[in-house]
Amino acid sequence: MTPEQQARHMDRALTLAARGAGAVSPNPMVGAVIVAADGETVLGEGWHRAYGGPHAEVWAVRDADERASVSGSMASGADLTDATIVVTLEPCSHFGKTPPCADLIVARGFRRVIVAHEDPFPEVAGRGIARIREAGADVTVGVRETEARRLNEAFLTHVRTGRPLVTLKWALTLDGQVATASGDSRWITSPQARALVHRWRAEADAVLVGAGTARTDDPSLTVRDWPLAEGQTQPLRIVLDRTGSLASDLKLFTDAHASRTVAVTAPAATPAYADALRARGGTVLTAPEADGHLDLGAVLDMLGSGEGLARRVQSVLVEPGPGLAAAFLRQRLTDRLFAFVAPKLAGVGIGIAGALDVERMADALTFFESAWETVGLDVLLRGYFHAP
Amino acid sequence: MTPEQQARHMDRALTLAARGAGAVSPNPMVGAVIVAADGETVLGEGWHRAYGGPHAEVWAVRDADERASVSGSMASGADLTDATIVVTLEPCSHFGKTPPCADLIVARGFRRVIVAHEDPFPEVAGRGIARIREAGADVTVGVRETEARRLNEAFLTHVRTGRPLVTLKWALTLDGQVATASGDSRWITSPQARALVHRWRAEADAVLVGAGTARTDDPSLTVRDWPLAEGQTQPLRIVLDRTGSLASDLKLFTDAHASRTVAVTAPAATPAYADALRARGGTVLTAPEADGHLDLGAVLDMLGSGEGLARRVQSVLVEPGPGLAAAFLRQRLTDRLFAFVAPKLAGVGIGIAGALDVERMADALTFFESAWETVGLDVLLRGYFHAP
Ligand SMILES: NC(=O)c1ccc[n+]([C@@H]2O[C@H](COP(=O)([O-])OP(=O)(O)OC[C@H]3O[C@@H](n4cnc5c(N)ncnc54)[C@H](OP(=O)(O)O)[C@@H]3O)[C@@H](O)[C@H]2O)c1
Ligand SMILES: NC(=O)c1ccc[n+]([C@@H]2O[C@H](COP(=O)([O-])OP(=O)(O)OC[C@H]3O[C@@H](n4cnc5c(N)ncnc54)[C@H](OP(=O)(O)O)[C@@H]3O)[C@@H](O)[C@H]2O)c1
Repeated sequence: MTPEQQARHMDRALTLAARGAGAVSPNPMVGAVIVAADGETVLGEGWHRAYGGPHAEVWAVRDADERASVSGSMASGADLTDATIVVTLEPCSHFGKTPPCADLIVARGFRRVIVAHEDPFPEVAGRGIARIREAGADVTVGVRETEARRLNEAFLTHVRTGRPLVTLKWALTLDGQVATASGDSRWITSPQARALVHRWRAEADAVLVGAGTARTDDPSLTVRDWPLAEGQTQPLRIVLDRTGSLASDLKLFTDAHASRTVAVTAPAATPAYADALRARGGTVLTAPEADGHLDLGAVLDMLGSGEGLARRVQSVLVEPGPGLAAAFLRQRLTDRLFAFVAPKLAGVGIGIAGALDVERMADALTFFESAWETVGLDVLLRGYFHAP
Repeated sequence: MTPEQQARHMDRALTLAARGAGAVSPNPMVGAVIVAADGETVLGEGWHRAYGGPHAEVWAVRDADERASVSGSMASGADLTDATIVVTLEPCSHFGKTPPCADLIVARGFRRVIVAHEDPFPEVAGRGIARIREAGADVTVGVRETEARRLNEAFLTHVRTGRPLVTLKWALTLDGQVATASGDSRWITSPQARALVHRWRAEADAVLVGAGTARTDDPSLTVRDWPLAEGQTQPLRIVLDRTGSLASDLKLFTDAHASRTVAVTAPAATPAYADALRARGGTVLTAPEADGHLDLGAVLDMLGSGEGLARRVQSVLVEPGPGLAAAFLRQRLTDRLFAFVAPKLAGVGIGIAGALDVERMADALTFFESAWETVGLDVLLRGYFHAP
């Protein structure tokens, strides 16, 4: 297969993988394409569809078997001994919820395996590739690696750091305001931008806001303008309420999704909403303080470990006001910043700029990588603070 | 000619017209294309090249004559009696620096004339079109009118209001800052964006800054990163110095282009730099005050009238800090806002947001029309506050 063919099939596998967004966490999104010896003909395709379900390789092999039986040539499954399987992540080598994919690949006799990158998950970490190589197949690693790593940034970040991937979301006027002086922020961006935020919520394990935003906006933080996958739950709604003084009647504490709410307070706080929230299935966690605020690093550690929660949180979409945004940025806890800028001017209101201790313009915080795209009337910056 | 052909030839004429940018002011930019009876074959092209020189129609007819004589068919000029002339502005009907183009069109017997829009200039204002129609040619008005009006927005604004077209230029960090807290602003944007600013300067009659910017940045405001047209002078450099207290050693008052500097002060001011600046060929104007500042409307009237200047100013590029920007916006003196946003964060410094008295986000200042484009690493918003 030429490098160009490898890249093309990998792109297709990445597109398939992305179909699992929101439905496979805490597993990674994975896609697989089985290609005939000519390097062109696609024999089967698959992707990881749901957490706990069969992996992409299994679906792709099943698809190839089905296509072969339909074409009538093979009653007992496709002959894949000349074929290549192109897969976005190293095939697993361990018994998890399903048997090892490396064994399946060996059993079906694939001649060649093309992988975007190694799986850093401790129980795999090169063993899947080694197993396949030992069995005599040719393995290529590194095709479209950057793209594949960006796709599974949440999974990879969590494996590497034990913390969730942190995405800050901003919606700003051209003059840098998130609200007018009276605190009004509805709406800054166009409906298209707002729908995209709902998509990001749907693709995140959790959404997080500070007490200021909870108090001023009384947001519901649910996914409404984007369809949830079958069986997918609303993301957790995390609210940082150090002093435990938020009003008990906020939507987060009382609406139909209260079971998905996690309030984080300082140990000394005694929030009035605590019992009622727990009765509705919600959670109240306590986190340590640092410098007179909640220790954000400790909060991320807790979320990543799943301590006190039904499961580990691999990704969190932070929808901060200026105070919380500056804290995340100053403490270098942010992986990505997705910012909408709307073509309108609010004048002096609540500006997004926080205290970042930048003395000279040359020392401004910049991105490792960033790109602009227009969304409705607005523009969206996707900025990444480090390599994937 | 089909509407599609008309639009296509007009687009070409507009492209030709734009070649005159910076060189024809205070005349409008005009382009013309002569098309054969088949609606496709282009017989000649022309554009207004320099202030005082022949108009676009004259160049296009000359071009057609030359092409005809080269092809050998016509020693005494092309036969244009079956042809159409497509021109971006109504042909003139008066003797200015050149004889009337309407007469030329009639003399050459064009069958048809297609015009983007009427010339509102009082000495034309429909008379050119009337003259041609009386002579029996068919005249169509309104093809690509919006595009043509945007191209000559400065000329049209000046004819309509007596004031220059006012373009505000901003360069912002993503978090809405124009400088750090220490006043440092070099550089916010990428070199590509800065080159574009030099192009805008070259295309404007004047560049304008406030005293704050003059004091903090000591800018030279010249065109350096964009080539000036042959014979084109640097734009006027206007600095608003109400109190006349700017330092005498600023570049604006002392560099090689001091003759292009216009300081505007309040009547009572006695600037220390006045005599030296005049000796270098520069200008000191006085303008009335309003609400404790210079009366910006009166300043624009003065510039538009050319009072005390070598010529009328039809367009001014304002490069404001937050104070001056808010004044122009609040007083609705701005026609266009061109704003770069750079993918970097400065934190709280000097924010661009000024006092605009916007209570609710729904009342934020919006544009009549706006568009985003990426320039280098940055994004550029071109926002128009009214129809062209
Ligand atoms: N346009 C948008 O995208 C958008 C999004 C959200 C909010 N907003 C607007 O922003 C405004 C609210 O702004 P805000 O800044 O008050 O809201 P915020 O984002 O809720 O920020 C305050 C929260 O951040 C915490 N915090 C501050 N500094 C911290 C630090 N160093 N470490 C840890 N935690 C820290 C505060 O905790 P402590 O109790 O410890 O101080 C508090 O919980 C509202 O008007 C809202 O409409 C706009
Ligand atoms: N990034 C950029 O694109 C950019 C561009 C320019 C400047 N800057 C930065 O902005 C900072 C300077 O900001 P600034 O606001 O002090 O500068 P500025 O733009 O010079 O604004 C102050 C000027 O505006 C005048 N003004 C204020 N309100 C007015 C009103 N209502 N009517 C008429 N005139 C009025 C002031 O006159 P009075 O004497 O009457 O008050 C003064 O001349 C510098 O740090 C500079 O680096 C950045």
